[in-house]
Amino acid sequence: MLHSKTTVTLHDIYRARQAIQGHVTRTPLIRSESLSKRFACDAWLKLETLQPTGAFKLRGATYAMSKLTAEQRAAGVVTCSTGNHGRAIAFAGNKLNVHTIICMSRLVPDNKVNAIRELGAEVRIIGESQDEAEVEVRRLVNEAGMIYLPPFDHPDIMAGQGTIGIEIFEDLPDVGMIFAGLSGGGLLGGIGIAAKTINPNVKIIGASMERGAAMIASLEAGKPVQVTEYESFADSLGGGIGLDNHVSMAAVKTVMDQAYLVTEAAIARAMVHFLEEEKMLVEGAAVIGVAAIEQHNLDVSGKKVVFIISGKNVAIDTFDRARTLPQSQI
Amino acid sequence: MLHSKTTVTLHDIYRARQAIQGHVTRTPLIRSESLSKRFACDAWLKLETLQPTGAFKLRGATYAMSKLTAEQRAAGVVTCSTGNHGRAIAFAGNKLNVHTIICMSRLVPDNKVNAIRELGAEVRIIGESQDEAEVEVRRLVNEAGMIYLPPFDHPDIMAGQGTIGIEIFEDLPDVGMIFAGLSGGGLLGGIGIAAKTINPNVKIIGASMERGAAMIASLEAGKPVQVTEYESFADSLGGGIGLDNHVSMAAVKTVMDQAYLVTEAAIARAMVHFLEEEKMLVEGAAVIGVAAIEQHNLDVSGKKVVFIISGKNVAIDTFDRARTLPQSQI
Repeated sequence: MLHSKTTVTLHDIYRARQAIQGHVTRTPLIRSESLSKRFACDAWLKLETLQPTGAFKLRGATYAMSKLTAEQRAAGVVTCSTGNHGRAIAFAGNKLNVHTIICMSRLVPDNKVNAIRELGAEVRIIGESQDEAEVEVRRLVNEAGMIYLPPFDHPDIMAGQGTIGIEIFEDLPDVGMIFAGLSGGGLLGGIGIAAKTINPNVKIIGASMERGAAMIASLEAGKPVQVTEYESFADSLGGGIGLDNHVSMAAVKTVMDQAYLVTEAAIARAMVHFLEEEKMLVEGAAVIGVAAIEQHNLDVSGKKVVFIISGKNVAIDTFDRARTLPQSQI
Repeated sequence: MLHSKTTVTLHDIYRARQAIQGHVTRTPLIRSESLSKRFACDAWLKLETLQPTGAFKLRGATYAMSKLTAEQRAAGVVTCSTGNHGRAIAFAGNKLNVHTIICMSRLVPDNKVNAIRELGAEVRIIGESQDEAEVEVRRLVNEAGMIYLPPFDHPDIMAGQGTIGIEIFEDLPDVGMIFAGLSGGGLLGGIGIAAKTINPNVKIIGASMERGAAMIASLEAGKPVQVTEYESFADSLGGGIGLDNHVSMAAVKTVMDQAYLVTEAAIARAMVHFLEEEKMLVEGAAVIGVAAIEQHNLDVSGKKVVFIISGKNVAIDTFDRARTLPQSQI
């Protein structure tokens, strides 16, 4: 059992906030003139893109690692994410002087391998698939006694992401709605717990890509279910929620007011607009809330709306693909 | 005589800092992993792109406007910049409840006209050239008693831009070098006065585009001179310094340690890299310091280097042009 606590409170999130100070960027919340105008609202952007790893995941990884005992730290931390969580674990380990191993298959492209290595982690290339890399993670936990830190389903990870919620209220106490990408629920769950405890009237809105939205399917089924994965402009929202989900699904169920599914075309268009108007190249996951409003004609007029701009780890090629989607699809 | 004071001190800049608080964004200084690696230094980015108008000019415009007397405010403010200074005057006037008129010729494209109008200014379309628009500015000053706020050669404008220098020392007290775009000298002069007063050992480095660098030519001539203007990726650095320059040239002469001229190809390459690596689309002027290091093979290794990322008011088309410059030019 990695952790027994299955709920997170605002108190936990304040503890996380203190622990990560100095290691994680206290990101700015800036007003978006263009989105305010487009949606007739007061739109604000929480720029998690300014984290040193380019994504919010650093908050949870740093907090979870800071809470390890001296013995656990000495054992080291292992994970198999090659995306934002893997980058966060590598960076946090380097900062907190904890040895980290990121396991990945030989199919992972060189640039991703090098990026993780440069952040300070040991990279272990194992087998031909993510499943084989996961076998190595389990072996390192069981045989070498290393600590596995999962990407979202862990109270400390969720408390770390929740610090975003406190910062939003510090900067914009009258926030009315918060849009967050919905994947495993660590981000939305953590922010939602902070926000709803501070003001139960704030609306927490999730958005996922139409194809492969594991959390939404699980909430509908009443229990964690697997869904088929597809390629997506919001690929950092991909992956399952874990069939033995302990923490994050319950949190999402408690705090989320509404969830929307969004097409690839809407995500692509939001990415292109965001570069044209805000001059920032971000992941599809970062603008999926913007895409949801547009695609579903949501009425947010007159409201103070915060968008969690969750990450920027995307190549310019992806933007080029988004820009050249056939007009019929847009 | 619009102003008689011809020097600016750190004391003035602290006054500016207090006056602009709440009206202007206290921008973050974030570490650039990619530039730190590329130049073997500790590279930091001062993100003036996050100002509500997308550029640093809002600092000086807000401070200068806040210092007007009640009578001057009632008379209103006029200028003829259609770029970052014009946007700043329009925005600051709207915030501080001062009527502003931006004069421009009918050659100015609709999108620029609308952008200024949306920021809250009155737009007056006059004649077929910038010169004719300037005649109207003088008429409004002389006949209607309006106040002209120039883009850089004014102690309050320079003090406002200088607040960037204080913020840099708050966030990174051991900064060793600051790179700023050099045009009229308001930005570099203001930052340099703050920085050198706090630590005389900090190096202040300017960079201008090779063609049309009025300040560098003026410093070489020992007096303000006119230079021919050309199109540039760093177009926000264009324009003369004023043949009757009162304040900014003397400041630049006092605080600047070194200046570099940079080719269009180097600016274009820096813009493309900045989008690829930092995921931000910025003006050529914003990355001209990066271009200077690369083009001149400057040794900044081991140093704490700050780049003033001065503005983001650039269209994606400009990026496309930068990206498709013939390789021979890059």
